[in-house]
Amino acid sequence: MKKWIIGACALTLVAPFSAALADEGMWQPHQLPDIKKQLVAAGLKLNPDDMSDLSKFPMNAIISLGGCTASFISDQGLVVTNHHCAYRSIQHNSSEKNNLLANGFVAKTKQEELAAAPGSRVYITESLTDVTNKVIGGISPELTGNDYYQAIENNRKKLVAECETDDDYRCSVSSFHGGASYVLIKLLTIRDVRLAYAPPSSIGKFGGDTDNWQWPRQTGDWAFYRAYVGKDGKPADYSEDNIPYSNKAFLKVNAKGVDEGDYVMVLGYPGSTNRYRTAVEVESTFTWTYPTAKLYREEYIDVIKQNSAPDSDERIKYASNIASLANYAKNYGSMVESYKKGDMLARKQRLESDLANWLAKDAQMNAKYGASLVVLNQLIEESDKNKERDLLMSYMGRTTMMSTARSLLRLSHEQEKPDTERERGYQERDLKGYEQSMASINSRYVADIDKALLKHFLAKYVDLPKGQRIATFDKFFEIKDKDLTKATAKIDKMYANTKLGELDTRLAMMAMSEKQLRASDDPFIQYAVSQFDYSMEEEKLSKTLSGKLQQVRPEYMKALIAFKKSRNEAVYADANSTLRITYGNVKGYSPQDGLTATPFTTTEGMLAKYIPEDDEFDLPLKLREAIEAKRYGNYADPKLNSVPVNYLSTLDITGGNSGSPTLNAKGEFVGLVFDGVYESIIGDWDYDPTYNRAIHVSSPFMLWVMDEVDGAENLIEEMEIVR
Amino acid sequence: MKKWIIGACALTLVAPFSAALADEGMWQPHQLPDIKKQLVAAGLKLNPDDMSDLSKFPMNAIISLGGCTASFISDQGLVVTNHHCAYRSIQHNSSEKNNLLANGFVAKTKQEELAAAPGSRVYITESLTDVTNKVIGGISPELTGNDYYQAIENNRKKLVAECETDDDYRCSVSSFHGGASYVLIKLLTIRDVRLAYAPPSSIGKFGGDTDNWQWPRQTGDWAFYRAYVGKDGKPADYSEDNIPYSNKAFLKVNAKGVDEGDYVMVLGYPGSTNRYRTAVEVESTFTWTYPTAKLYREEYIDVIKQNSAPDSDERIKYASNIASLANYAKNYGSMVESYKKGDMLARKQRLESDLANWLAKDAQMNAKYGASLVVLNQLIEESDKNKERDLLMSYMGRTTMMSTARSLLRLSHEQEKPDTERERGYQERDLKGYEQSMASINSRYVADIDKALLKHFLAKYVDLPKGQRIATFDKFFEIKDKDLTKATAKIDKMYANTKLGELDTRLAMMAMSEKQLRASDDPFIQYAVSQFDYSMEEEKLSKTLSGKLQQVRPEYMKALIAFKKSRNEAVYADANSTLRITYGNVKGYSPQDGLTATPFTTTEGMLAKYIPEDDEFDLPLKLREAIEAKRYGNYADPKLNSVPVNYLSTLDITGGNSGSPTLNAKGEFVGLVFDGVYESIIGDWDYDPTYNRAIHVSSPFMLWVMDEVDGAENLIEEMEIVR
Repeated sequence: MKKWIIGACALTLVAPFSAALADEGMWQPHQLPDIKKQLVAAGLKLNPDDMSDLSKFPMNAIISLGGCTASFISDQGLVVTNHHCAYRSIQHNSSEKNNLLANGFVAKTKQEELAAAPGSRVYITESLTDVTNKVIGGISPELTGNDYYQAIENNRKKLVAECETDDDYRCSVSSFHGGASYVLIKLLTIRDVRLAYAPPSSIGKFGGDTDNWQWPRQTGDWAFYRAYVGKDGKPADYSEDNIPYSNKAFLKVNAKGVDEGDYVMVLGYPGSTNRYRTAVEVESTFTWTYPTAKLYREEYIDVIKQNSAPDSDERIKYASNIASLANYAKNYGSMVESYKKGDMLARKQRLESDLANWLAKDAQMNAKYGASLVVLNQLIEESDKNKERDLLMSYMGRTTMMSTARSLLRLSHEQEKPDTERERGYQERDLKGYEQSMASINSRYVADIDKALLKHFLAKYVDLPKGQRIATFDKFFEIKDKDLTKATAKIDKMYANTKLGELDTRLAMMAMSEKQLRASDDPFIQYAVSQFDYSMEEEKLSKTLSGKLQQVRPEYMKALIAFKKSRNEAVYADANSTLRITYGNVKGYSPQDGLTATPFTTTEGMLAKYIPEDDEFDLPLKLREAIEAKRYGNYADPKLNSVPVNYLSTLDITGGNSGSPTLNAKGEFVGLVFDGVYESIIGDWDYDPTYNRAIHVSSPFMLWVMDEVDGAENLIEEMEIVR
Repeated sequence: MKKWIIGACALTLVAPFSAALADEGMWQPHQLPDIKKQLVAAGLKLNPDDMSDLSKFPMNAIISLGGCTASFISDQGLVVTNHHCAYRSIQHNSSEKNNLLANGFVAKTKQEELAAAPGSRVYITESLTDVTNKVIGGISPELTGNDYYQAIENNRKKLVAECETDDDYRCSVSSFHGGASYVLIKLLTIRDVRLAYAPPSSIGKFGGDTDNWQWPRQTGDWAFYRAYVGKDGKPADYSEDNIPYSNKAFLKVNAKGVDEGDYVMVLGYPGSTNRYRTAVEVESTFTWTYPTAKLYREEYIDVIKQNSAPDSDERIKYASNIASLANYAKNYGSMVESYKKGDMLARKQRLESDLANWLAKDAQMNAKYGASLVVLNQLIEESDKNKERDLLMSYMGRTTMMSTARSLLRLSHEQEKPDTERERGYQERDLKGYEQSMASINSRYVADIDKALLKHFLAKYVDLPKGQRIATFDKFFEIKDKDLTKATAKIDKMYANTKLGELDTRLAMMAMSEKQLRASDDPFIQYAVSQFDYSMEEEKLSKTLSGKLQQVRPEYMKALIAFKKSRNEAVYADANSTLRITYGNVKGYSPQDGLTATPFTTTEGMLAKYIPEDDEFDLPLKLREAIEAKRYGNYADPKLNSVPVNYLSTLDITGGNSGSPTLNAKGEFVGLVFDGVYESIIGDWDYDPTYNRAIHVSSPFMLWVMDEVDGAENLIEEMEIVR
């Protein structure tokens, strides 16, 4: 399967909603006044109108880290997010000797704070502007395929360029409802980000991969950054002279946390959901893509583990990679499991047949939309044609040397063009981030591991279905039939001779012209050169397909939205990494017949899982002693006779929501969302109020650990705490 | 570790109990009047005095199958027990073509009933007589070690011989409280037992090994036998002329089942518990024996599976063996896990130190018992000396050819002696059972699997700690150092040439004198001959140790019992396969922080676990259709809107209780106990009211399946059903 390049369609949709399923929905800020009644009925004490204003509390306090959400939690730029969102920065500052991952980190003063991993950013959404007309309003109806795709690309790039007046802002254009509307997003970008606090991984990652996506859960998944700006209050590169950023709004921390049934909401940047995909896409994804990708990820992890000793520097470099691979392997596994147990496919099929019947009743609608699903499905099948090859090459392409070489060559190629014509990711605006990503390779690359990974996937390559082999690839590696003898020897030589592992080389190459780079004798650059024409051709094919999809999918979506509205069903946009709000209640669930998941876990439950010296279930001595002595101060919940560690809610979240603050009815911070339960992973495709539960770390637990265990009194004093 | 040969000590104990922990305790029938208040307070509506009378309802309806419990459920000899207790009989009547394990079995008439597996028996406890004085009253205080052991053995055998007046009765002498008292048990023995009904394994074993010892659970673990006797009403060998046995008492079946909180009790034959073991024994068992035995069992299963295709005749022959191996592998695993999490060892140590302090306060008591624990622990350590060898050889000794040859030679040896002097198991009274066990080998033996198992353990044998190797064993198999070349060749030859796989050979050998047998050229008999002197020596050493233990353990137990009584703690006897009652309530529990196990599972939950074609989670089409259509007749519980499949209770049970009827306050049958939850497995050593839960199959589910799915209306009509 090919990952769609973002689709687009023309439909203005700023609709008032009715009959939304309770707890389902990731609402855009501007929609909040439309669902005011529901919000107030659910218990919200803030004014929904105020909440839709990005310049005001609480929305103004919600920030993106790019991939994760965070929030301002003091007036001195203190930022709270998940431990797993700050993981790369903790890892970046860790070594075998000074292992912050293992030991945790408390900056007792601002001076002790550590620079976050290269490329770390804090993004504050400053404005959201509807630009639908500017993106698709003026495109000639005659354009199709790649031309249509490029027209949208050009319009988006133009809007972004106009918006990014200086380094302080990043802009992007997001499509909603599969392209029903486009929104220009302007983000204030703070680039001096520092690590202020992280609990030891034995708290922050307690339960490890075993407990990931699981309930019961007792994970202290939080950490603190601090945002710094220049003395003029504007974003600046790292400098000792920089000062903490004082944001307009920040969140107050409620030290009591929540009770069962309480109204809660999560404000954040959910990444993507697929709630409106077709049955054909669903079936292909769940019966082939996910099972296969799960396997590849597990193999990827195995190869890393086979080639690095536990706790070695090498393993530490891949810790973040492993975590991410394992995370989605489990994610895919759960989705396949839920899919097999459930009837999503049957319901999708029924929906599509109901839709067809509904359209058939209205000649005009039918003429307009009747064929859209058929055409859409044909395109999906076309895109699936080489799915075995595409998926395999995408995993092989994750290896560092291959991806670095291809990307450097592409950069040199794009840099020959005027800036606005360059491919996204290679424009002037991207170069700082690009450089940082080149720099960060040193902390996450080990040649022997990279080589073993490449060889692993190469061995699978020769077993691809007939006709899917890539001629230029076979040629470069001298692969005949299934014989990898020469390829293996070649790879050994490539890793022995490449200089791409050195930062200086990579930075020098960033400055080279395409011609200079093509002349390089670095074996991986030579590899990239050998595959360049082929991959450009493939990219063009893919864009052509995307262009066609960008024309067809909106038609189908328009039909579907009209049909759903006719049935009074909620219509909210799929997640797309833009600011959303989801609201619901603190609530347990029944994961299966004969079992009830109660909504809270406790410090005692954490201690009960403790396994000494175990990578996943170890706990710091100080924490254990505090639990055993029940030294809970004012943080204990009398009903639990313990400190609540994690809690469940009905909120509708997904990846990207990680690190999002959880607010109570008054907008006070009551914890961070950091995961969902196993049964709700399929929620990205299909929200089920019976099983969909988000997992939060509770504010009292965070405060208690900082107060009683980690001695981070300075941070507690800094925050405004409601007791 | 050596399995203790049953210990004994002199202490008369018929004490009234106080302050028993709720739900804990496996009470002897004669104790029921002593705990009358508690029983009535808990909700019992029957008269506890009546319940202690073995000739009356309900005790008279409770029977043993030897290793499992069962009960009479009609006046025509219909016997209900667990599917896993009838498993060997279902397996015995199964073949690839007519697979009753897979398809289930319903005898629509008595004529269609099938003979149970050879050796199947129904035992009805007719009397229990205190014989403490006769067993140990007259033993000279000067006897020690092996002499003391033999004196007890002789007295027990004498009592048994006097009791067993004819074939219709089996008698045995059981020791209670580590030998505080001895009881002569007289069992009426019915030997024509037939299979009347078994659900398909996809119901009777639903969840398989995966769900074994687990909650949530939806297993229909029941089957029906029928007991037949001669026309004169007396036990008889199988004959077409035999008639169903009409027992004095039988159980009425309550079709509504139970509600949460209901009083329930289980009457049955729990096998053994270890609630009074010392800290030294606990530590040795949980840190070495159980982990190692678990490993050996898993290896044993692996070897069987590697050498037989799924669903083949070969695999079917080992199905029961695998089930039992897996069952205890999981059992040991859970116990080790609970042990690591819990503080049993620390509590035992505290108890022992409290006991020492308490004894120290009373000079007389201290003089009498002060040293008992020290001496006991010395003996335990002595017995552990060769634990690696002893455990390994016991698993190697489970292979069929080795065990059969050794046993046949031993039989010939014992048969040269007068009957009363023979070792238990080889007396006249044992010969019928012995012959049946020889006959049953054919349905559970495959030469290639047996050989592979022997080789597997032989490979481990050469890695035993120095000094634990057995000279005669090395000599016979020509093992030098770790070289198994000759041994392997020899074993191949032995299996090629042995005739012990043939029933005729085994039966003929049963009739041979020791001299004749020793002259046999059967290679396994030759093996047994070569090891005979060594194993007799080992047995004597073991008996000597047992004799010493039989003198010391009672001293320690007397001290412990006196101390516990001084603290008003319950003193009930460890389980010993004699008739007991445990009572408590239908109740869920919290297996861990953040989770509650609710007390009922439902047919919908069963369907939710369904995985087509899966060996463990398949379900019959008819059952699935009935659930989907909710064709529940009168069997549904309106609160659940479903038929309750399994339920949880606080009852104190263990192996041997399998198949025990569960009775409500009025003594009506409301299901069968068949398992415990994972967290309660360690209950054999340490009852914890928080985690100790028994799992029952509900009477409404049994009736519903028989009525709606399996068409066993004839059985439903036969039973007396309370609706």
